[in-house]
Amino acid sequence: MSARPRIALIGCGRIGQVHLRNLIAHPERCEFAALIDANEPALRAIAAEYRLDTISTDPSIVFDDPTIDAVIIASSTETHAAYIIEAARTGKSAFTEKPIALDLESTDRALAAVGGAGSRLQVGFQRRFDRGYAAARQAIQNGDLGAIEMIRDAMRDPAPPPPAYLERSGGLFRDMTIHNFDCVRWLKGDDPVEIFAIGSALTGDDIVAANDIDTSIVSMRFPDGSLGSIENSRRSGFGYDVRTEVFGSKGALHVGDSRQTPVRHFDAAGVREDHQYFFLERFRDAYEAEILSFLQAIIDDTDVAVSGADGHAALRLAIMAESSRQSGRPVVSGEIPSEIEIEPPSRMIISA
Amino acid sequence: MSARPRIALIGCGRIGQVHLRNLIAHPERCEFAALIDANEPALRAIAAEYRLDTISTDPSIVFDDPTIDAVIIASSTETHAAYIIEAARTGKSAFTEKPIALDLESTDRALAAVGGAGSRLQVGFQRRFDRGYAAARQAIQNGDLGAIEMIRDAMRDPAPPPPAYLERSGGLFRDMTIHNFDCVRWLKGDDPVEIFAIGSALTGDDIVAANDIDTSIVSMRFPDGSLGSIENSRRSGFGYDVRTEVFGSKGALHVGDSRQTPVRHFDAAGVREDHQYFFLERFRDAYEAEILSFLQAIIDDTDVAVSGADGHAALRLAIMAESSRQSGRPVVSGEIPSEIEIEPPSRMIISA
Amino acid sequence: MSARPRIALIGCGRIGQVHLRNLIAHPERCEFAALIDANEPALRAIAAEYRLDTISTDPSIVFDDPTIDAVIIASSTETHAAYIIEAARTGKSAFTEKPIALDLESTDRALAAVGGAGSRLQVGFQRRFDRGYAAARQAIQNGDLGAIEMIRDAMRDPAPPPPAYLERSGGLFRDMTIHNFDCVRWLKGDDPVEIFAIGSALTGDDIVAANDIDTSIVSMRFPDGSLGSIENSRRSGFGYDVRTEVFGSKGALHVGDSRQTPVRHFDAAGVREDHQYFFLERFRDAYEAEILSFLQAIIDDTDVAVSGADGHAALRLAIMAESSRQSGRPVVSGEIPSEIEIEPPSRMIISA
Amino acid sequence: MSARPRIALIGCGRIGQVHLRNLIAHPERCEFAALIDANEPALRAIAAEYRLDTISTDPSIVFDDPTIDAVIIASSTETHAAYIIEAARTGKSAFTEKPIALDLESTDRALAAVGGAGSRLQVGFQRRFDRGYAAARQAIQNGDLGAIEMIRDAMRDPAPPPPAYLERSGGLFRDMTIHNFDCVRWLKGDDPVEIFAIGSALTGDDIVAANDIDTSIVSMRFPDGSLGSIENSRRSGFGYDVRTEVFGSKGALHVGDSRQTPVRHFDAAGVREDHQYFFLERFRDAYEAEILSFLQAIIDDTDVAVSGADGHAALRLAIMAESSRQSGRPVVSGEIPSEIEIEPPSRMIISA
Repeated sequence: MSARPRIALIGCGRIGQVHLRNLIAHPERCEFAALIDANEPALRAIAAEYRLDTISTDPSIVFDDPTIDAVIIASSTETHAAYIIEAARTGKSAFTEKPIALDLESTDRALAAVGGAGSRLQVGFQRRFDRGYAAARQAIQNGDLGAIEMIRDAMRDPAPPPPAYLERSGGLFRDMTIHNFDCVRWLKGDDPVEIFAIGSALTGDDIVAANDIDTSIVSMRFPDGSLGSIENSRRSGFGYDVRTEVFGSKGALHVGDSRQTPVRHFDAAGVREDHQYFFLERFRDAYEAEILSFLQAIIDDTDVAVSGADGHAALRLAIMAESSRQSGRPVVSGEIPSEIEIEPPSRMIISA
Repeated sequence: MSARPRIALIGCGRIGQVHLRNLIAHPERCEFAALIDANEPALRAIAAEYRLDTISTDPSIVFDDPTIDAVIIASSTETHAAYIIEAARTGKSAFTEKPIALDLESTDRALAAVGGAGSRLQVGFQRRFDRGYAAARQAIQNGDLGAIEMIRDAMRDPAPPPPAYLERSGGLFRDMTIHNFDCVRWLKGDDPVEIFAIGSALTGDDIVAANDIDTSIVSMRFPDGSLGSIENSRRSGFGYDVRTEVFGSKGALHVGDSRQTPVRHFDAAGVREDHQYFFLERFRDAYEAEILSFLQAIIDDTDVAVSGADGHAALRLAIMAESSRQSGRPVVSGEIPSEIEIEPPSRMIISA
Repeated sequence: MSARPRIALIGCGRIGQVHLRNLIAHPERCEFAALIDANEPALRAIAAEYRLDTISTDPSIVFDDPTIDAVIIASSTETHAAYIIEAARTGKSAFTEKPIALDLESTDRALAAVGGAGSRLQVGFQRRFDRGYAAARQAIQNGDLGAIEMIRDAMRDPAPPPPAYLERSGGLFRDMTIHNFDCVRWLKGDDPVEIFAIGSALTGDDIVAANDIDTSIVSMRFPDGSLGSIENSRRSGFGYDVRTEVFGSKGALHVGDSRQTPVRHFDAAGVREDHQYFFLERFRDAYEAEILSFLQAIIDDTDVAVSGADGHAALRLAIMAESSRQSGRPVVSGEIPSEIEIEPPSRMIISA
Repeated sequence: MSARPRIALIGCGRIGQVHLRNLIAHPERCEFAALIDANEPALRAIAAEYRLDTISTDPSIVFDDPTIDAVIIASSTETHAAYIIEAARTGKSAFTEKPIALDLESTDRALAAVGGAGSRLQVGFQRRFDRGYAAARQAIQNGDLGAIEMIRDAMRDPAPPPPAYLERSGGLFRDMTIHNFDCVRWLKGDDPVEIFAIGSALTGDDIVAANDIDTSIVSMRFPDGSLGSIENSRRSGFGYDVRTEVFGSKGALHVGDSRQTPVRHFDAAGVREDHQYFFLERFRDAYEAEILSFLQAIIDDTDVAVSGADGHAALRLAIMAESSRQSGRPVVSGEIPSEIEIEPPSRMIISA
């Protein structure tokens, strides 16, 4: 399409600012075209700091501008599907933060629009662009582990989000575990067909008030009999904990802890190291790589690395987990309707 | 009882020889009295190597000898209960390898005999005597982790056992997972009340022929809402894998990998370390510590560190897991009858 | 001076491009004003890629432009001093790659110009801005290690540089060990007073032809009796190796290895990890932080974090080491003349 | 000689008790014959604990007993040479703790007696029997690292010894660094030809009163131009620190830290591990392996793994280091007379 696509960004909250920085830092790959945010004071402050000319609280200036090639959607979840549809309608590539929507029906509508327009949609599962996870997937694809027999994927946040976030999050499985579901199906190269989930609310009244859980274990079975588990917690007490273990017939592979620095302190009490506290630290490079990958797909006019169907599939697994937790029994694949065809996970993209 | 108890050993197979070495190496704590094994050539070979005087294929020479204070039972599983009962009848302390029996009825009979005689029975859950696990339990007891919210316990053998072993093993949960159940309930200080188990036979025809599984994930819920999971595999492809992670409101604790040596080799392909291959390496010190603990209980005339009730409780959880796997649904505590009172896990023993 | 200083960059080779990227990525902190390089084709290619307007092979367009606040000097070593003097003459702040010059006389002339103009000069010892090294220095300053008794600093490159580089490098101590000397004196907060150095040429004929060494050990004594050692090699065989160990009366602190990813691969041969190969990977964040620190000093009109005197002091230690190696005996501080006053290492700067 | 040699032990202090335990634990390899110690109360206490029959304060009962095949000398340093000579005279194999003596003359006399008698003498450099160090040496011998270019060997004790020990220790180099010298020459397979040593007394008045040092760095050059360094401290502040790094043309190898347990504790302050505190923990298995190796040499009637010539060579390097430190200049090999022929380090022995 364009050797240097013009990109608009909708949403300049925490994750929007991450994307903004990565776009600005790569003038050799894109031209930053416009910043949109409903919150005008925040918008003006960001624009002043980064010397941005074109800003607005009205997204139609983006969708009405034919010189803009693509839009990055980092606004609140309930707006994603509408912006995706609008981008499809106006022939723009779209990158959306996960999830596309909190229900399969809205997700299907958005995907239908993209499919109908033949346009491009990438979903923000950034973990796939982490060098560690990309190396893990590559090793699996190479057959280094033999046949995959078990995957264990864990993710814990340092502390629970505020009540306002919880209310609109869609619950632990749709908000948090959705990342693990994407990771597991992408590493395995297949979707689980049976899911059993248990959960508890252990961190405090906010979770209970939101009728949500903060601690969960999901176990799952794949069509070939291999097994998987996902652990989540809203509160680790020590920092961001994202780790994955893959076991195969020939060996195993761990994507492990990440430290902030390689410092070790030895004293009479033992040895101390530091630990990464926040997901933005752990996945800083992955956030940059996913945007570069999206830009490259536009430049090369190719498929994106993480498709809308991937977003649909991960949401569907989250819904199966929720159903299992509420019913207290395992849920099999056929119990959750799927309007769109379930495709195998998108092709591998190794971050540069 | 005795400042230097006289100990007989029944069974000089792989694990029996481990106990034999540890007894001989501690003349300051015990006198080795007799070695019994049904296999006479093996018995004679061991006796010659270690210069043992009193050996027999007939265990009655042990039970008929009032100068023998205790017996260590390392013979095949189906003989454990009878020897425990015989030891109780003749007033001897007994240490038995796990499990006491493969069914709860036989286990209850053995425990009733011990209870009736007021004698001493220790079960061979050696992991409790590992310095790492003992430190973990101590940290949990100290409240260092706050309230426990999740436990994940993994154990993998390097390669599946031979068919002859599989046939008499009682299946994966009773043979292997029983160690994990003991570990989890001991660390948590409580028994799970709901268990869901999935398993597959992935390593080959032997497992299928034995109508067994080789790969499993157990998820569980404790009375306070905290969660747990256990992963097992008969074949890791890389060595013995025993690791445990405990998550609490204030932080987490991992009992991790063990290396054979602290050597790291750096070359163009990266960095290489070694890994322990076998459980006897990983728990070498724990096997010594559990026997020393048993001897100390005799010398001090106190309770043992791992009771018969602990053996019963772990077996009961294994049976719940098997029932869940076969029925395809979660099993709750009340579904499995328990003749004896379920007691909380035995007191903490820190290995010296 | 300026809330958003205008910065020119002289030199767009490997390290110049690193600085260029970091300047472009921070429009909120600076305005990129001009790029100068003697190699016109390379200059034009870079300018095209990054959409740069103002470029020239003639540095006078920078020094003649009063709107340019500062210049970053990343050209070849023999040009550093002249550009520093020119920047001082025209009232611009300067950042220079190390070393200022290969001899103390030229260094002194450059520092005299800066001192006379009262202008600002920062030297590119980027290791100080690494989060690990900054944390180490902070811990030492905090007294966490008690009195410092020994420092060991090691640096190895993956492979020797080409002959053309070696010829103009000034030799191993001035080219490579100078980084270690800066690090050691900065961590210790003092300069060694006695140095003994041994070296060999082991990697091949290029080193011998350049009359240089590629492998060396420097040992040193500080005024308080504490000791230090520096190891260098032009060829590690496995990647970039920069590690430091500091030992004090209360404990020790290691700044250790850095991995590319947190992936560990377990198989029958053991456990494998990756390793960083190149200094630009290891110090990527430090290069960004040192430029941000320089910009901040301009914005806040304060002292730089790494002064010209620091550059002078490290060069002087390198010259002492060279003298020791050639004479085969320890060299004490008084043997090397110092026109400028030796100051203690610059104040601590923690990278953000 | 004997399929199950009869062994006497002279000295039941700290290290003597380690040997005693290892002898008793291996009735399949030896018969414990007699325990000798000059301190009668200590001797009687140990004998009672371990149920030993034959004890004496008079070593002549050992040397006069022709049924005793070998003697293990763990008495104080000044007695080693005389007992070695006595063992040689009476045709017994001898194992001696290091050093043979504190001076080369006494060492030469002892070695001459052993040589004249054609008897067997092993020196207690236990590090060679550590699995990590044995693996390192094997890798070097295999050529895995290519040509060796540098070795760095560090050893630190947790805390300085008492004044009484210091007085008779022979000084840091002969008492402590002698282990490093043996390790370095054994790993390298050659002796350094030039040594430069610096040292300081930093830990307190005891060291100064003993006219000794507690902190030192030794640098050295081998005949092929490769380099080495040794760091020592009497006080680490955190535990026992023994680590070695070997750098070759193809890569590097670290023998690193040893932890007591594989426990990692994560909380808001970071990650904590434990550390081994004491050399007896770190080298527990090596002490057992060296005695088993000595016994095997007797059983097989072969050479020992660590010869008297190795003891002589390490002492000679320690004396070179002391001479360098006192003179303030490098010392070359020819400056220290050597009555006996310097042999290359003894053959490799891999501990079982």
